[in-house]
Amino acid sequence: NRPFVLIAGPCVIEEEDRVLRIAEKIKAITERLGIPYVFKSSYDKANRSSIESFRGPGLESGLEILKKVKDEFGLPVISDVHTVEQAKSAAEVLDIMQIPAFLSRQTDLLVAAGETDKVINVKKGQFLAPWDIDQVVAKIESTGNEKILLTERGVSFGYNNLVVDMRSLPRMKKTGYPVVFDATHSVQLPGGAGDSSAGEREYVPYLTRAAVGAGIDAIFMEVHDEPEVALCDGPNMVPLDELEELLIKAKAIDEIVKEN
Amino acid sequence: NRPFVLIAGPCVIEEEDRVLRIAEKIKAITERLGIPYVFKSSYDKANRSSIESFRGPGLESGLEILKKVKDEFGLPVISDVHTVEQAKSAAEVLDIMQIPAFLSRQTDLLVAAGETDKVINVKKGQFLAPWDIDQVVAKIESTGNEKILLTERGVSFGYNNLVVDMRSLPRMKKTGYPVVFDATHSVQLPGGAGDSSAGEREYVPYLTRAAVGAGIDAIFMEVHDEPEVALCDGPNMVPLDELEELLIKAKAIDEIVKEN
Amino acid sequence: NRPFVLIAGPCVIEEEDRVLRIAEKIKAITERLGIPYVFKSSYDKANRSSIESFRGPGLESGLEILKKVKDEFGLPVISDVHTVEQAKSAAEVLDIMQIPAFLSRQTDLLVAAGETDKVINVKKGQFLAPWDIDQVVAKIESTGNEKILLTERGVSFGYNNLVVDMRSLPRMKKTGYPVVFDATHSVQLPGGAGDSSAGEREYVPYLTRAAVGAGIDAIFMEVHDEPEVALCDGPNMVPLDELEELLIKAKAIDEIVKEN
Amino acid sequence: NRPFVLIAGPCVIEEEDRVLRIAEKIKAITERLGIPYVFKSSYDKANRSSIESFRGPGLESGLEILKKVKDEFGLPVISDVHTVEQAKSAAEVLDIMQIPAFLSRQTDLLVAAGETDKVINVKKGQFLAPWDIDQVVAKIESTGNEKILLTERGVSFGYNNLVVDMRSLPRMKKTGYPVVFDATHSVQLPGGAGDSSAGEREYVPYLTRAAVGAGIDAIFMEVHDEPEVALCDGPNMVPLDELEELLIKAKAIDEIVKEN
Repeated sequence: NRPFVLIAGPCVIEEEDRVLRIAEKIKAITERLGIPYVFKSSYDKANRSSIESFRGPGLESGLEILKKVKDEFGLPVISDVHTVEQAKSAAEVLDIMQIPAFLSRQTDLLVAAGETDKVINVKKGQFLAPWDIDQVVAKIESTGNEKILLTERGVSFGYNNLVVDMRSLPRMKKTGYPVVFDATHSVQLPGGAGDSSAGEREYVPYLTRAAVGAGIDAIFMEVHDEPEVALCDGPNMVPLDELEELLIKAKAIDEIVKEN
Repeated sequence: NRPFVLIAGPCVIEEEDRVLRIAEKIKAITERLGIPYVFKSSYDKANRSSIESFRGPGLESGLEILKKVKDEFGLPVISDVHTVEQAKSAAEVLDIMQIPAFLSRQTDLLVAAGETDKVINVKKGQFLAPWDIDQVVAKIESTGNEKILLTERGVSFGYNNLVVDMRSLPRMKKTGYPVVFDATHSVQLPGGAGDSSAGEREYVPYLTRAAVGAGIDAIFMEVHDEPEVALCDGPNMVPLDELEELLIKAKAIDEIVKEN
Repeated sequence: NRPFVLIAGPCVIEEEDRVLRIAEKIKAITERLGIPYVFKSSYDKANRSSIESFRGPGLESGLEILKKVKDEFGLPVISDVHTVEQAKSAAEVLDIMQIPAFLSRQTDLLVAAGETDKVINVKKGQFLAPWDIDQVVAKIESTGNEKILLTERGVSFGYNNLVVDMRSLPRMKKTGYPVVFDATHSVQLPGGAGDSSAGEREYVPYLTRAAVGAGIDAIFMEVHDEPEVALCDGPNMVPLDELEELLIKAKAIDEIVKEN
Repeated sequence: NRPFVLIAGPCVIEEEDRVLRIAEKIKAITERLGIPYVFKSSYDKANRSSIESFRGPGLESGLEILKKVKDEFGLPVISDVHTVEQAKSAAEVLDIMQIPAFLSRQTDLLVAAGETDKVINVKKGQFLAPWDIDQVVAKIESTGNEKILLTERGVSFGYNNLVVDMRSLPRMKKTGYPVVFDATHSVQLPGGAGDSSAGEREYVPYLTRAAVGAGIDAIFMEVHDEPEVALCDGPNMVPLDELEELLIKAKAIDEIVKEN
């Protein structure tokens, strides 16, 4: 019943300057509000809708920038891993390894991530029921690693749409592991723009407050200082200058939900 | 941005004594908490899964009992209407007429209800998108009646399951009308018990807090003093002795969401 | 294992001349192909998306036109009934009473239709699982009427979309009653055009052949000589001049499926 | 408009003897019926529900057995590839590389498979709309490889269930590439047995005939001589001794659909 943690940052690692600036600003906001903060950004987007889409700087350059974020701001960092090999390399820098939703049943990847002994954040696949996560957890636990986070990011609902089933939050919590709500991917309209995903950023505050009301351990949120020029997920990222207000409400609700 | 209203009572009108007792107790709770309260119970359940299921006392006897609730406790009352004829008769007692979800596109019923000039609460059909409600609203408005409530009660999600899309709450609000969250039908598993609907009462508090967190104008909730012997919807009704705690949290969240 | 029957005609009863002309032409086609034929058209569309939409000539005038179709062409006729009262009046003309999908769980309507002792065609609700139809059947059977047809017309799939689950055809067949495939409502995009339903007529031949391949007892299909000016369901009706070719393939497949 | 091809074999490579025996028997059946045949079996099941499940003999031993099937029976072979490295090794033996559904948006895998210049069979992800496949195709085409097959295997429909949208067959065909219907994974109930997937084998003949009726270029089907002891997908595989009858009907329907 501890207060929620914020996992946030730009969808993909863009220019180093911008990444550091965003990290710095979110750090300042979360310090003011007393919210523990983990910096998130991806070094590689391995399953973009289109082959033309920007994928990021790649593993090596990306990890360098994430290392700077750690060193300069003292923030823990999280990023996705897509292969067994990446899991090993990324463990040198990452504090939390994230398993992408599409890969959430790939046994080798889950085991390789588990074996790094880092914290593992699994995004529940868009094709999984909340209780299906029990088997995913068992795959990671088979390595002896019991530092697991479970993230809700919406489930397939017809075509090019996701719906967040808030029942999944308490259901996943029955595993005993902390549950994270991914507020920005949950408003994606996957493939909704033909050669990229559309998104409905306007619903982020509603879904965030709803998930905090239901009860969660962490909020995951992609944030950008200029979403309109972002190289990935612009339509659903939260503008940096709207973040603080959103967190203030969320924190107040979280306190009510968790007080006895 | 007014505090939420509670619409609550037993699913179906059972023995008069029990109905009055439940009304009295919920009234006491809501007065303690300062929550405006509307009594809800159905005189007829016209679309039970099975023909063997209890349907209620019928229109005439049912309205008599609802009238007693009004007279004895000074509470406004709401109940479902299923036909044009019922709409006319029921208007003599009801303060709010409820259009059942399956009937939410039946033009004649919507128009007949609208013409009574009562408040109309439409439950959004399990087969409707949030924006489809705009046309439902237009049907009622065609009568000149603009006293409309719109209720979310879950949308079809695969077989024998519903999911609440919390995006529907702000989307329906764009009509300008108050939005109600039906916390107990939203956890139904329609037809999930073969010849009746199953339900997951355990999720009611989570979904209620989530919906209040997203922002709503009223909570609809079926409540019973002994759900295990209830003649309808036992598996999803809220036990009377758990209501107050649930409302206390909901009210605190509601205040945060609505404060500037 | 008898060859399939065709239930077809324009969505709604428009001008008498047009209705008779369509009936005559479909009769000629089905006679050439040796397919038993039931004429279908609605005298009232009671749940159009918009209150502005054309609803039809109403019960009385509509039944008169249907009676002419019976008398002039010797065809059995089917039309929807929406209320208990309509069921009684319509029984004087109709050979088959159709229960609309949204009303497929309304107990009183099912019972009233059953009591006419006519054949009852229930369209399975967009919100029902295939096995939920068992309880619907039991409601009609409670009247002693065992002349029942069960129609698949798609199930809710996300927003403004339906999907046909072909497993439903053999599953409904387990009731022992004939199963009908509604090929034109199955390609509707409900509410997909804002104030009316859109539709994807191009998929009708594919779904028809698929359903016949799975095995059915009847095809239901709305047909119009000029769909582009039709007063209802234009986007999904089959143009009259494409009907014969479609039926030829369907009949050939049906024979293969049903031969031992 | 050529007759359909059959892609079939046991879900996973079990004992060599059994694999060869199944290949031999299916070969005999398809030769009798004049159906071109590709042998399918997986050397590794990389995303089983549970970590305890059998995964197969692994890449090296598996490819050896597949090579024997090629050499002894002169059959082309298909198997799944899960990583960039596997794509390269597997190309030495496989005629067709299969991209698993969960991995159908992994850009690097699609590109690596494309670069082998083998035929690539992509299973459409359970989370993809039919038109989303256009971007998947573009990823493979970016390598200059235009030997692509597109497989329908059902789309997420609520929890632990899939539905086959037969509209996806003609929609995917618009890419210009052959479309395959996977008849046995389409009846899976993913995760439906808790620590493994359940399945409804009884629906395979219905869905197969339906898909052939809609019009396809190939049928994919997992077949086992003793499904009840199979090490993978037993509940949905077709028993070997039921295959011929199923194919006879399918072939007859296919001829009707494709004749002018």
